[in-house]
Amino acid sequence: MKPSEKALVPFVSVDHMMQLIHRIGVEEMLRGLAEYIEADFRRWDLFDKTPRVASHSDVGVIELMPTSDGELYGFKYVNGHPKNTREGLQTVTAFGLLASVETGYPVLLSEMTMLTAMRTAATSAMVAKHLAPKGADTMAMIGNGAQSEFQSLAMKAICGLKTVRLYDTDPQATRKAARNLAGSGLEVVTCASAEESMEGAQIITTCTADKQYATILTDNMVGAGVHINAIGGDCPGKTELAPAILHRSDIFVEYPPQTRIEGEIQQLEADHPVTELWQVVNGTAPGRTGDRQITLFDSVGFAIEDFSALRYVRDQLPGTEFYHPLDLLADPDDPRDLFGMLQRSAS
Amino acid sequence: MKPSEKALVPFVSVDHMMQLIHRIGVEEMLRGLAEYIEADFRRWDLFDKTPRVASHSDVGVIELMPTSDGELYGFKYVNGHPKNTREGLQTVTAFGLLASVETGYPVLLSEMTMLTAMRTAATSAMVAKHLAPKGADTMAMIGNGAQSEFQSLAMKAICGLKTVRLYDTDPQATRKAARNLAGSGLEVVTCASAEESMEGAQIITTCTADKQYATILTDNMVGAGVHINAIGGDCPGKTELAPAILHRSDIFVEYPPQTRIEGEIQQLEADHPVTELWQVVNGTAPGRTGDRQITLFDSVGFAIEDFSALRYVRDQLPGTEFYHPLDLLADPDDPRDLFGMLQRSAS
Repeated sequence: MKPSEKALVPFVSVDHMMQLIHRIGVEEMLRGLAEYIEADFRRWDLFDKTPRVASHSDVGVIELMPTSDGELYGFKYVNGHPKNTREGLQTVTAFGLLASVETGYPVLLSEMTMLTAMRTAATSAMVAKHLAPKGADTMAMIGNGAQSEFQSLAMKAICGLKTVRLYDTDPQATRKAARNLAGSGLEVVTCASAEESMEGAQIITTCTADKQYATILTDNMVGAGVHINAIGGDCPGKTELAPAILHRSDIFVEYPPQTRIEGEIQQLEADHPVTELWQVVNGTAPGRTGDRQITLFDSVGFAIEDFSALRYVRDQLPGTEFYHPLDLLADPDDPRDLFGMLQRSAS
Repeated sequence: MKPSEKALVPFVSVDHMMQLIHRIGVEEMLRGLAEYIEADFRRWDLFDKTPRVASHSDVGVIELMPTSDGELYGFKYVNGHPKNTREGLQTVTAFGLLASVETGYPVLLSEMTMLTAMRTAATSAMVAKHLAPKGADTMAMIGNGAQSEFQSLAMKAICGLKTVRLYDTDPQATRKAARNLAGSGLEVVTCASAEESMEGAQIITTCTADKQYATILTDNMVGAGVHINAIGGDCPGKTELAPAILHRSDIFVEYPPQTRIEGEIQQLEADHPVTELWQVVNGTAPGRTGDRQITLFDSVGFAIEDFSALRYVRDQLPGTEFYHPLDLLADPDDPRDLFGMLQRSAS
């Protein structure tokens, strides 16, 4: 028995997602994602917002991140297990779903490990476009793990980055990132220390993975007139920046109730002033106001960015072969006759 | 490029779920589900419990129901859209997931429209086994929608039900249920009123769908010495029983913080005494204590029941062909080299 059309949900596998990215082009897709994310930041007020629903254990966390704009509902499943790397597993895996608010029926199921890497980088670059010093063309990329190449290419595609200066405590990670970025059009400089990576950089991205209070940047390392894009501090107990840097910076966040728990600002008083990024994007709050200002994006990742990314993917799928229909929903001819549908399936 | 084993998640489609049910047998599977649910009620204290995370709109609700026993994490996506029936769509559709707490990696993705119908009926019957009068063999089944046949068969398989007396305001629904239950071994009696359906019944199941305060049972309809299995009152503003019945009953619930918002007892004071079912199951609270007592299961459905159902399905799959591997997770050879995996997929 064939399931009816209504029962089928388009599913984008990891392989299909990668093919979709190549068809569109990595940089073009990063630009497209940034546009969708920026559009959703502009209408931020419309969204149902709630801190993610987390299930913590000794070794990691599993989270659900739901949101809705009133027409579409979306959520992401994502785990964070820093010790996975040692076992040859991903620290973070994810998948997500879009559904119609009108019917409650899912309209898209998608892998989101690859897509989260793309949307995180697109968000960083969209924010840097608003906050980084004019003409910024050099970035220090501290932490050369899974996110580093995506960050570098998004900054190139969206902010005009020309040079990326790579540093990681593990030189193998730096070599991997440099190899992956060869031929990207970026000038790639591998550095032996965090200090060296920051020479001449107007944008400083930190994306390290240790689940502890770390100090990747100390106060004396950071000069005036830079934009810090702090990605790695993204759960309780995990930070990357010395508190003194936070006190010298103007801090921009996605959703304060979540960032105060998970971001760099968990190190500060609960009433330390921060600016919500959606207000910068829609012009109701100032972004960068001076050449010597330090702007800090305290990034933790928010459900609306995943929602935007799923919307983008859904809009790219028609006419491609990069999905397959999944028999996820029971759809009896008579909705009250679920049992009859089961009975008839026996024959 | 083939995804690696680690990247693949077993997926049970609606069609595979129906084949699995037939392979095991509907009644045998209802018994198996009831055993898994009862086992998890017995170790209720172990579970992470949280009220469901709901996104409400004018026309319905979309919910995520997560829980964990410390080894496995599970969640269900489920919608509730009463108006869907008029549009030829299911009121409720659902799917769910199990994941390893240790790695955060999903281990099962499954349809749960069919499975929720099975687990809801199995839960009702497991509870009736504990609470219904001894020798109860006749049930009034009021509301003959999608859940009615499952309820009837679960009561037969688990409680020894012999006769089901069907009533619905829509005679077509009653005819459908009677037709579906013909040949089940149950004596099926179709009735012209709720009162008639309750003649001789020791178990009264209400499962109607209107999203409003309704009074399916009035006080004078309910005699002493019965067990009421109230399924349909399961969201804010939706109830089925007259408050006077609640005051004459001993009330048993799954998870008080959720039932006080969604169940029949939303009509009562917030401190009205209720008994938690897990305590009846593990012997720390009394169930039925007398022949003339009215016991009431104020059922709303709880995440742990879905968790039990997914556990049951996972344990039945090995050696069957009723699932297929889904390429849901990115699994690069080097976990830090997600971008390299993307690059290599181009060739």
